[in-house]
Amino acid sequence: MATSDQSEQLAPGQTVMIPSRSGRAFTMKKGQRLTVIDPRGEQVSDLLAFNTHDLDEVISSGRTLDYASRIYLTKGDPLYSNRSNVMLRIIEDSVGRHDFLLTPCSKDTFRIIYGDKEPHHGCFGNLSTALMPYGISSDRIPVAFNCFMNVAIDGTTGQLCVDPPKSKAGDHITFEAEMDLTMALTACSALQSNGGSFKPIHYRIDD
Amino acid sequence: MATSDQSEQLAPGQTVMIPSRSGRAFTMKKGQRLTVIDPRGEQVSDLLAFNTHDLDEVISSGRTLDYASRIYLTKGDPLYSNRSNVMLRIIEDSVGRHDFLLTPCSKDTFRIIYGDKEPHHGCFGNLSTALMPYGISSDRIPVAFNCFMNVAIDGTTGQLCVDPPKSKAGDHITFEAEMDLTMALTACSALQSNGGSFKPIHYRIDD
Repeated sequence: MATSDQSEQLAPGQTVMIPSRSGRAFTMKKGQRLTVIDPRGEQVSDLLAFNTHDLDEVISSGRTLDYASRIYLTKGDPLYSNRSNVMLRIIEDSVGRHDFLLTPCSKDTFRIIYGDKEPHHGCFGNLSTALMPYGISSDRIPVAFNCFMNVAIDGTTGQLCVDPPKSKAGDHITFEAEMDLTMALTACSALQSNGGSFKPIHYRIDD
Repeated sequence: MATSDQSEQLAPGQTVMIPSRSGRAFTMKKGQRLTVIDPRGEQVSDLLAFNTHDLDEVISSGRTLDYASRIYLTKGDPLYSNRSNVMLRIIEDSVGRHDFLLTPCSKDTFRIIYGDKEPHHGCFGNLSTALMPYGISSDRIPVAFNCFMNVAIDGTTGQLCVDPPKSKAGDHITFEAEMDLTMALTACSALQSNGGSFKPIHYRIDD
């Protein structure tokens, strides 16, 4: 399997490795398919999408969950933008449990939730750095679609619990782009999300 | 009870009526308290907050739910910005059920969910119009804190169900501002959220 750190120059069908606790940004054309792979199992990947031709149009958890009337999304479900256009559609899913509630982990997440004194910059920092060359500022980062993230919800109390992902080594989720997109993906930096160990994420774009 | 359509010139302690299916924007100083009142019962009010001194800092469902580890927020809970600063804190709550998952109803909500052929502009349109004079564009409208909105969640299937609010006539929720804020509030335009009838919302700001 070929791997590369230069996701921007990615050839169709080439698999790219995102090292643990890092992130990548890249573009996709309408009709291309993105496959996000968990190579070792129990790892999370935060996914963001922006309309390449108008970066103010961005993936929206609120629109997507509202139109689906469901928290857990899987094969067949569209991911909507803040303007209610379909950006991506899930066309394959070997796991069936992902999260669209929580924002990317950040310095503040590690400070507030983990009590770290010298907190890591997290997925938020990795997404900010990766998206900066595309002209997207950190204030424009919304709730990400968190591939493989397993957030259990108690319907009575509303309590959220971040459990280890259900993904096993080699599991994947595939999205088809319904517009030209500027994307970002991470290999998540939060121990709670990943079953206690940092691991890479692989991805591939197919025509 | 004094009512006024000119929320911008609101005197402390004065109660303002937001007519059914409309919205208002206004500013609050740090330390002031906002009380949102449901005068007739079973009505929803979408709430947005921006940092007056830097409008790119905005209320964030993802940060707030993550740090609370809870979907349902009530007395004592802080509402965080996208930069992980506390914008507002809930200091009183006579209902105990609000939503922070779904975006404001919009023309697209009525088209996609209700199948309306000539859809109403919804809370999204009302928020856009109210915030425009403050220099906030519609693309900057995130998931709102939906006062009194009653979204039931099936923890197993993830199914969401918008039930009638639990609020009775005169019920309220009070927030304290922890920074200078530019706010917007609506009297919600979606029948599903409101138990089937459009009603006004009242609010009051106290020093």
